[in-house]
This record gives sequence, C-alpha cells and structure tokens, in this order.
Amino acid sequence: MNNWPSAVTIKEVGPRDGLQNEAIQVATEDKIHWIDMLSEAGFQSIEFSSFVHPKWIPQLKDAREVAGHIKRKPGIMYAALVPNAKGLEAAIETKVDEAAVFMSASETHNKKNINKTIDETFPVLEEVVQKAKQQGMRVRGYLSTVFGCPYAGDIPAENVITISRRLLDMGVDELSLGDTIGVANPRQVDEVLQKVLENISKDKIAMHFHNTQGMALANVLVSLQHGITTYDSALGGLGGCPYAQGASGNLATDDLVHMLHGMGIKTGLNEEKLKEAALFIQKALGKELPSHQMQILNRGG
Amino acid sequence: MNNWPSAVTIKEVGPRDGLQNEAIQVATEDKIHWIDMLSEAGFQSIEFSSFVHPKWIPQLKDAREVAGHIKRKPGIMYAALVPNAKGLEAAIETKVDEAAVFMSASETHNKKNINKTIDETFPVLEEVVQKAKQQGMRVRGYLSTVFGCPYAGDIPAENVITISRRLLDMGVDELSLGDTIGVANPRQVDEVLQKVLENISKDKIAMHFHNTQGMALANVLVSLQHGITTYDSALGGLGGCPYAQGASGNLATDDLVHMLHGMGIKTGLNEEKLKEAALFIQKALGKELPSHQMQILNRGG
Repeated sequence: MNNWPSAVTIKEVGPRDGLQNEAIQVATEDKIHWIDMLSEAGFQSIEFSSFVHPKWIPQLKDAREVAGHIKRKPGIMYAALVPNAKGLEAAIETKVDEAAVFMSASETHNKKNINKTIDETFPVLEEVVQKAKQQGMRVRGYLSTVFGCPYAGDIPAENVITISRRLLDMGVDELSLGDTIGVANPRQVDEVLQKVLENISKDKIAMHFHNTQGMALANVLVSLQHGITTYDSALGGLGGCPYAQGASGNLATDDLVHMLHGMGIKTGLNEEKLKEAALFIQKALGKELPSHQMQILNRGG
Repeated sequence: MNNWPSAVTIKEVGPRDGLQNEAIQVATEDKIHWIDMLSEAGFQSIEFSSFVHPKWIPQLKDAREVAGHIKRKPGIMYAALVPNAKGLEAAIETKVDEAAVFMSASETHNKKNINKTIDETFPVLEEVVQKAKQQGMRVRGYLSTVFGCPYAGDIPAENVITISRRLLDMGVDELSLGDTIGVANPRQVDEVLQKVLENISKDKIAMHFHNTQGMALANVLVSLQHGITTYDSALGGLGGCPYAQGASGNLATDDLVHMLHGMGIKTGLNEEKLKEAALFIQKALGKELPSHQMQILNRGG
C-alpha cells in the first residue's frame, strides 16, 4: 500500500489560467467578488491575474483594478503572472505577494510564445526575479510544455532539469511543471518525476495538469506517490476550449479536492464554499463548467 | 518507478451496461451493426446484452435478436448478463460464450436490486453457474457496490473477500469488482485490492469503474499497480444519467485505451475503429457522448 502525503497545498489558478482561456470577459466587479469568495474557501495561494499587455490577454486587462480591490486575507499568498520588468513594476505597485515568471521547456514553444530562445529568456527572467526578491516577494517559475509540445513533441527530462536548476539558481522559490496541452500520461509523469527528483528537491516542485484527455487526476495520483504536495488547479475546470460547452480545461479544483478529501488528504478547503464560488463564476460566464462536481450539481445531484 | 503490465484486456460493456442506462432505445439493427463494429475494433470480449425480464430493462428487450444476428468473430468472447435459470436458458439457446451472474457486496443493495439477502442469492447463482459450466460456458461474477453503497455506505473488504471466494468456489471463472455508483477513490481501491489480493489471485479479478467523480482512470492506475490486467469499460462513456447531455457514466473505453496506449500498455484495440464505432452509437443515441476523446472529436479536434 502507498504512503500518501497527509496534506497538500492547492494553488487556485482559475482567475488567471482559467479566465484567460475563456471567450467571455467577466466583469471586474464579478472577478473581485469571486476572488474574495475563493479567499473565504480556504486557499493558501491564489493566482488572481496576470500583468501582461492587454493586447495579449484582453480577459485580464483589469489586473491592476482587481489587485486593488480584492480583500487581502492574512495568510493567503496573492500571486500574479509577470512576463517582464514592466509587469513586475505593476505587481510591486499593487503589492502582489508572489510574482510568477514563465518560460517553456520546448525551444520552439518558447520562441513562439515569448519570441526568444531559451537562452535569451534567462537574463530577462533573472532581472525580474532579482528585483522581485529585493522587494521581498516570493517568486514562482512556470515551466510549460514539460510533458509535450504542440510543435516539438516529446521534451527530454534533461531539458526540464537543466532549466529548472537555472531558475532555482537565480532565486525562484518554486517551480510549477506544466502539462500545457494536456498530453501527459501517468507513466510519463512517473518517469519524468523520477529523473527530476534525483536532481531537485520535491519541496520545490508544484504540478500543473490540464484535463484535456481526462488523465489529470491519474497524473496527480502518480505525483502524490512521488511525494509532491503542491498542485495547481482551476475551480470548475475553467479554461477549456473557449467556444465549447463543457470542454475540459485546467484540472478542476473541486474534483481534485473531492478526490484528496476522499483519500483522507487535507487541503484546508471548505467544499461547500468551493461549490458556492463555482456556481458564482459559472453564472458570470453564462456556461456550464466541465468539472465532474459541477456536472453533478448542474443536474441537481 | 512502477512496473506496469505490458498488456491488458478490455471488456466492452457499452452494449449492456452503457445502453441499459440510456433513456433512448437504440434500434435493434443499429445495435447489431454497432456490436459488429466493436468486434472489428479488436476487443477480445464484448458484453452484448442482458437476458433479464424486459419489464426491468426495456432497453435490452431485444437480447435474443441481437444474439442471433451479430457476427461472431472467432477469438472474441460474446457475453451476456444472466440473472437466473430462465435467463441462462435463453443464453444457451442463443449460443452465448460467457454468462455473467451478479450480486451485491451490500446486503441492502442486494435486497433492493434482486429482492434476496446475500445468503439467499448464492443457491440461485450456484444453479446458474453449474448449468452454464455444464454447457461449456465461461462464467463471470459481477460484484456490485464494492466501494460503497447508496444505502449502506462503506462496504468492508471482508464482505467482498467472503462473497468472492464463494463465487469462485461455485465455479465462477472471473470476478468483476464494481464501483457501481462511482464513489471509489484511489486510496480506497489501493487498500481494498491489497486485502483482496492477499486472498484471491489477481488473474481472477477484473475492475469495473464508473467515472461519476472523474476518478475512474486514477482508480485504474492504482489497479494496474496491483497487477490487475482486466478492465470493464463502455465506449464513449455511455451509461451516464439518461437525461443529462455529457454526464459521466461508465469509464470510457476510448479514454482508457488512450491512456494505456500512451503508457505503452497494449490492448489489441484499433483507436481509429473505436472512434468510428463511438461516432456511430453517438448518432444512434442522438446525444453527445461524455468521453474526453469524444469531446475532442465533437469540437473538431
């Protein structure tokens, strides 16, 4: 029998990674109210927005306003994505607790996504990380396409390890290893984590799965077996294909919590309050959310 | 790292456990055509219908006609559910390869489902099993509510072991342990299998999961780690709530196959032919099927 961790930390990324992939623009006041509901539900960490240029992600153009109006509950880390020095300035001005930088484990994806080679990306991130640390902020590093790239296919675990080490060396506190396109299978997660954890402490690693193929919870399971205790997820499974009702997006926080609590693993989250928050954002988006918990709720179960 | 099995057997239960839980009655000729497509896709075992009284399950009232018209491909086991001696007669007359008997691991559920106590059920099943074996049929025993009962809640693993042993002693060739209401979590599956496999050979066990909470693939994963190599599933995730579009039912064959093939585990199934068969039954039912593979297909992915 397995030795499961007794508790895990769930980082709610719905307001950022969820909403940025939805076609409908949620009103700023609704976002603020929703994030306050998330704070009440018991999260220790909420990624509430992204300080990227509104041309890139118009859904999150109100990041400053959101940052200025959400209730900061003591003990919760309020995080935002920060692509560059300009984004960091906004994050500092709005008193964000954690800045998240990002790059890709795939050369092609990195190039397409941020118009730089992997090597060209490091100095840009290093500047951001150093400034953020000087301000006393925590820094998270997102590494995307860890388990597969839409352009390059498979990504060698060695690339993941090399990039991860460089990010940790420049002062990043935590790495989030992302299955950006939802292609990871549990055997692959098992094998990649085996290699990564020979080189990097498990306390530095968070896992970020998407449920495109329905394997996200199975991938979490394998990660739990490797002792990983931080997971990213989005309430209701927000962030699927923008135009498809019920299409799977991010791993759903509510499904993850349901599994973990069923397994006796603590999250600190209140399932009733999560439900209320999911119903609220579902109404604001005007479409049914794809998580299993929401499907059950939506059909009156 | 885990040692995964190199190959598994998938028993397609869509024509029985899937269709019996759909509100729409599929035309007999469509069922026959669909089962022939399943035979072509590479299954070693297909549960094509149930010889129960049509009053109970009107969706499967054409079991005799289906049995008489499907093409029997050599090497495939064509199975049917058989509740009693009368059902077995029909199965014998129509040359079914495998008869499946069923009972519940929960006293209350067994009573509600077949109107007998667990002790009263054994002699009824024993008669069926003996007659079936005399006819050279293979016999499968379904044990339902293994991981939880809607009436009784948790089911002690000891009950599962006791009933399983009695079924094997009376000549049942294989036990299918069912998460009838889709409540099992991976820790529970891990713990139950640990106890069951101390008493019963893993070669006698098949697992039957429903994806109500999205945990079916995670539960398969733990079962694979215990060396279980037979799984029941229904193409497209058929058999969800009859009135809800996209509601999760049985573990979806297509999602299971996608995961297993991704993990390098052989199934003998052709994913293209599975897709065609899923599209065919989706059209016959006139509603979108909930599997992730079908969601991707339905939105043009």
